[in-house]
Amino acid sequence: MNLSELIKKNRSYRRFEESERITAEQLRKWIELARYTASGRNMQPLKFLGSVDPETNAGIFPFLAWAGYLTWWKGPEEGERPVAYIVVMHDKSLSETRYCDDGIVIQSILLGAVEDGYGGCIIGSFNKGRVAHLLQLPDHLEILWILALGKPAETVVIEDIKNNDVKYWRDEKGIHHVPKRKLDELIFSIK
Amino acid sequence: MNLSELIKKNRSYRRFEESERITAEQLRKWIELARYTASGRNMQPLKFLGSVDPETNAGIFPFLAWAGYLTWWKGPEEGERPVAYIVVMHDKSLSETRYCDDGIVIQSILLGAVEDGYGGCIIGSFNKGRVAHLLQLPDHLEILWILALGKPAETVVIEDIKNNDVKYWRDEKGIHHVPKRKLDELIFSIK
Repeated sequence: MNLSELIKKNRSYRRFEESERITAEQLRKWIELARYTASGRNMQPLKFLGSVDPETNAGIFPFLAWAGYLTWWKGPEEGERPVAYIVVMHDKSLSETRYCDDGIVIQSILLGAVEDGYGGCIIGSFNKGRVAHLLQLPDHLEILWILALGKPAETVVIEDIKNNDVKYWRDEKGIHHVPKRKLDELIFSIK
Repeated sequence: MNLSELIKKNRSYRRFEESERITAEQLRKWIELARYTASGRNMQPLKFLGSVDPETNAGIFPFLAWAGYLTWWKGPEEGERPVAYIVVMHDKSLSETRYCDDGIVIQSILLGAVEDGYGGCIIGSFNKGRVAHLLQLPDHLEILWILALGKPAETVVIEDIKNNDVKYWRDEKGIHHVPKRKLDELIFSIK
């Protein structure tokens, strides 16, 4: 798979085959990709917590909000929930700033998961305090994002945006549609 | 090249073979990768300006700061300067926030360049006002990062960090050394 194919296959998946487990070794492998990425001023202030433990996963799940535009959907049901999480944290004892390191490492980790036949979703809406308490995080680690991971059990398609409406939607067959701006709309100019 | 190889090859290159040009079509191809990436709330508020034009490039160059830790180095000399730039901008008319979209698109673009035999550097220190004026940007486009691109003309190696010293350095042979935290230091825990 070349990079373009990999990036296109890396969709935000929110429903998974819960019977397909992920191992701690697999998480380590994907997090290792983050080690080799660029970091602003090379500070490398991001830290990672992984979970493949069903009990820990069950503890994290209730604190997460899913797919803001699908207001009628409460999130994945039992049997289709994430089998692993990677919590991306900012170690404030190392650096006050993180520049754009978080996006860089997240894209690297998710592409790694997709290359291995898995996938995930970046969750930014969750109860920070409750998750930090559950995971017994020290104060200097601030949770930035939670990656929910598993073997995807849904189809996600990209389509050209219409009327500037960015809201993704799910059709009657359960297919998830994501409107994307056209390339010419993204490019201000090339000279 | 698998993803791990690609990510390891994607170093921050600051010296280039200036005789090796990049075309507008190549920039379009790499920016297209950004179109297929995740975006917070799917807002897709980032815009891109590309330049492969020697005159525009010469106009941008003086406003950039290079390699903060190499205080003795003034940046790439004539003959080893970037042959292309991608200016990553936030379109404030679309969304006030950008979440971690910028890191996601930057990693995707740079991996695309590396896959095609090029490379680049994320520059965050530059004269924003002067660059915006030079490029005649409207007020709603805020410059976030400038990617300097070309055919790399330097060797960059990664090594394990020592004494928590994150400063990269260049040896007497011109090889650029980048200390990276060990994987076990990045992982808070995996359960």
